[in-house]
Amino acid sequence: MVKMIATIHEMRKIIENEKQRGKTIGFVPTMGYLHEGHISLVKRAKAENDVVVVSIFVNPTQFGVNEDYDVYPRDLKRDKELSEAGGAEYIFHPTVEEMYPNGYQTYVEVFGITDKLCGASRPGHFKGVTTVVNKLFQIVSPNKAYFGLKDAQQVAVIQKMVKDLNMNVEIVPCPIIRESDGLAMSSRNVNLTPTDRQAALVLSRSLFNAKSLIEAGTRDAVELFGVIEDNIEEETSIKVDYIKIVDFETLEEVKEIKGKVLIALAAKVGKVRLIDNIIMEA
Amino acid sequence: MVKMIATIHEMRKIIENEKQRGKTIGFVPTMGYLHEGHISLVKRAKAENDVVVVSIFVNPTQFGVNEDYDVYPRDLKRDKELSEAGGAEYIFHPTVEEMYPNGYQTYVEVFGITDKLCGASRPGHFKGVTTVVNKLFQIVSPNKAYFGLKDAQQVAVIQKMVKDLNMNVEIVPCPIIRESDGLAMSSRNVNLTPTDRQAALVLSRSLFNAKSLIEAGTRDAVELFGVIEDNIEEETSIKVDYIKIVDFETLEEVKEIKGKVLIALAAKVGKVRLIDNIIMEA
Repeated sequence: MVKMIATIHEMRKIIENEKQRGKTIGFVPTMGYLHEGHISLVKRAKAENDVVVVSIFVNPTQFGVNEDYDVYPRDLKRDKELSEAGGAEYIFHPTVEEMYPNGYQTYVEVFGITDKLCGASRPGHFKGVTTVVNKLFQIVSPNKAYFGLKDAQQVAVIQKMVKDLNMNVEIVPCPIIRESDGLAMSSRNVNLTPTDRQAALVLSRSLFNAKSLIEAGTRDAVELFGVIEDNIEEETSIKVDYIKIVDFETLEEVKEIKGKVLIALAAKVGKVRLIDNIIMEA
Repeated sequence: MVKMIATIHEMRKIIENEKQRGKTIGFVPTMGYLHEGHISLVKRAKAENDVVVVSIFVNPTQFGVNEDYDVYPRDLKRDKELSEAGGAEYIFHPTVEEMYPNGYQTYVEVFGITDKLCGASRPGHFKGVTTVVNKLFQIVSPNKAYFGLKDAQQVAVIQKMVKDLNMNVEIVPCPIIRESDGLAMSSRNVNLTPTDRQAALVLSRSLFNAKSLIEAGTRDAVELFGVIEDNIEEETSIKVDYIKIVDFETLEEVKEIKGKVLIALAAKVGKVRLIDNIIMEA
């Protein structure tokens, strides 16, 4: 039976107790409305640690003023069932006031790689992410923390924070989980209309096309960019935010596919902003 | 025999080992060139913990471009002897490259209270302080960390960081240690000429005068400010940076002495910037 924890104090006491008993802690930080992608993280955490903590916290500081904080889907009851089925022992679900009490004033910021891709479109987003993940790591003090690669830039930013601040936690990046038709799983998918849901398939399809071309020998980034862009333009209801072909570590744009490369895109499908990516090595 | 540790990796391994043996860790972060003030922190840490770690690191990110990073005094051999005499088990003295490797990009910043007092005169100073102290806390993971109240604002800023980021460490503020003639101990005092050293005494004297007046019933902040300012103006070689009478928690200026009040000043004595303060409760 998964145990629900609402306060930092109680969470910390539980962790201290588990650690005293020699248990290792696997941590899956989420914003809730869990899908198979999240559950794959929970299962992996369970396989690699004694105790699994899932946090469910829709973090206001990582949303811009005109973004979808208010309509971000929430369903704690369902999240509880799914976490339990995945093997989690604890769900940490603090209130906003618990995490950011009156007079809160401290932020953790990674510079450089946060200006690119989603960071360029969502100023302040990654500052909110690094701050809340830093806080959650202090509260849960996990041995390992699991993040999905759908948010590839988020993984890179958190790995950079952990390295720079000498945090004693191993970040485990986990593969994107997709619907059977290719759409990358996202809590935001539930906000798509049926028509938009169908149109959104072009995002993953364009990436798969790029993947096939790379596997067939294409190395030219401009050519690949053109293919992805042409693909997505077929869906006139989709407004591309960015399509980027970048080095996976620096997130700097590359001219050719060489080493570990991230091909990432973001687009507005109806009212919903979706992201997707593939990582290629050549 | 105090053990010298230069790498983060080795420091972390030692701490892990000590913690596995059930030992508590007391931590005294310093910039070295230790004086009796620092040693009072080491002794207190030793009295309250099993193992004491002193860090010695002149942190470049907390110095402004025209400040005294290059001439900040350094003497690791003497620091070693003093730390050992105080009861420390370990000295952590990393290089700048060890703490800020090439490509370093992450900063921890407390807003609000860092704009005032020394923060107003030294933009970026407290961002450097909170970043390095955050890193040191991750590396040493102390149960308790000891800071001198000469840097009263620093204590307030670090307490705020620890609270906001839910860091699992107790901050222990410790009283100012003074020379027999009243001068607050500071590693920077060694850079004073004999004449400036003499002139500098007016700083503590002005604060003691204010203290006497408060003890005799004076509550008006403007009156106390005038007394301190008049005192210091007697020494024409001293250039006051600020004299502030503020609430100890918010660092907001107060009109009367009520509750816990910090009377703090900073002044340039010759080429050396000195700070001093008293904390009063009324």
